Amino acid sequence: HFTNVEAQESDEIRQFRRLFAQLAGDDMEVCATELRDILNKVLSRHQDLKADGFSLDTCRSMVAVMDSDASGKLGFEEFKYLWNNVKKWQGVYKQYDTDQTGAVGRAQLPSALRAAGFQLNEQLCQVIVRRYAAEDGSMDFNSFISCLVRLDSMFRAFKSLDQDGSGHVRVTIEDWLQLTMYS
Amino acid sequence: HFTNVEAQESDEIRQFRRLFAQLAGDDMEVCATELRDILNKVLSRHQDLKADGFSLDTCRSMVAVMDSDASGKLGFEEFKYLWNNVKKWQGVYKQYDTDQTGAVGRAQLPSALRAAGFQLNEQLCQVIVRRYAAEDGSMDFNSFISCLVRLDSMFRAFKSLDQDGSGHVRVTIEDWLQLTMYS
Repeated sequence: HFTNVEAQESDEIRQFRRLFAQLAGDDMEVCATELRDILNKVLSRHQDLKADGFSLDTCRSMVAVMDSDASGKLGFEEFKYLWNNVKKWQGVYKQYDTDQTGAVGRAQLPSALRAAGFQLNEQLCQVIVRRYAAEDGSMDFNSFISCLVRLDSMFRAFKSLDQDGSGHVRVTIEDWLQLTMYS
Repeated sequence: HFTNVEAQESDEIRQFRRLFAQLAGDDMEVCATELRDILNKVLSRHQDLKADGFSLDTCRSMVAVMDSDASGKLGFEEFKYLWNNVKKWQGVYKQYDTDQTGAVGRAQLPSALRAAGFQLNEQLCQVIVRRYAAEDGSMDFNSFISCLVRLDSMFRAFKSLDQDGSGHVRVTIEDWLQLTMYS
């Protein structure tokens, strides 16, 4: 029934499967280098996005926080989740580049993060600016994406630890180091 | 009594003060860009260290985990602590590059981390290899340093949360996001 399954897939999914197969190569997993290359290829096609490029270390960090099965690379579902988010967040980024500088300004950042799915208090916004923004408070595309990938993963990591939904978790030194070093 | 204080300082500290003043510029704080430039300058002087260079994002992450006063930059004491560690770990790195490839191999890594001050179980070693090493398990200089800067800071962060020394801490979602996003 292979043809039936194929027919049920939308064009978009088929296209995505092809992209993934091309990227992932023989091992059918996307490693950090492959992720860096595809992201920088996207960047090179969008001159309207201000960016200094994704470094290998940044991509390693993104793979780590997305790598639910601890394989060291991204499988099909992990990569699909990441890719859909990147596409969505690219739309948000362009929409909130209101002064057309190619970056999201400090004033637009809280709304941009909200549009990306995160309602954060001012203290956390400040932390994010300190870590990811340039001196003038604006955020370029690679910083915006790596910030959101991390934010999304850290929310999910907390929720999976906080199984009773109490809003706090008990963490041992071993868990702490595993979680914070693989990120 | 300025001259007395000056006289008591060792040559090394005086030299370090000069380096810091040069690097830090008018605001007397070292930002991520300044850190990247000095680290890559060190690299350029040591052709025996295999490295693909420190990226701005990696340096932002190092500044974040070292930035105890949340100024967004490194003051004199914060930078001195980091610099002394980098010098110490550079010595360890060279010592454990036993096959003279310019990198620390997978087999040498546990001993190298131990010599750098961290006795880790095999599970955590594996996590670190997955996040920081190349496909063949070897670690280049910038990965080694950024790994150790993070490891040292995450140990210290846990200890400061675990004030009663019980080996586990209770973390709220706000603390969790602040800690993991500013790193």
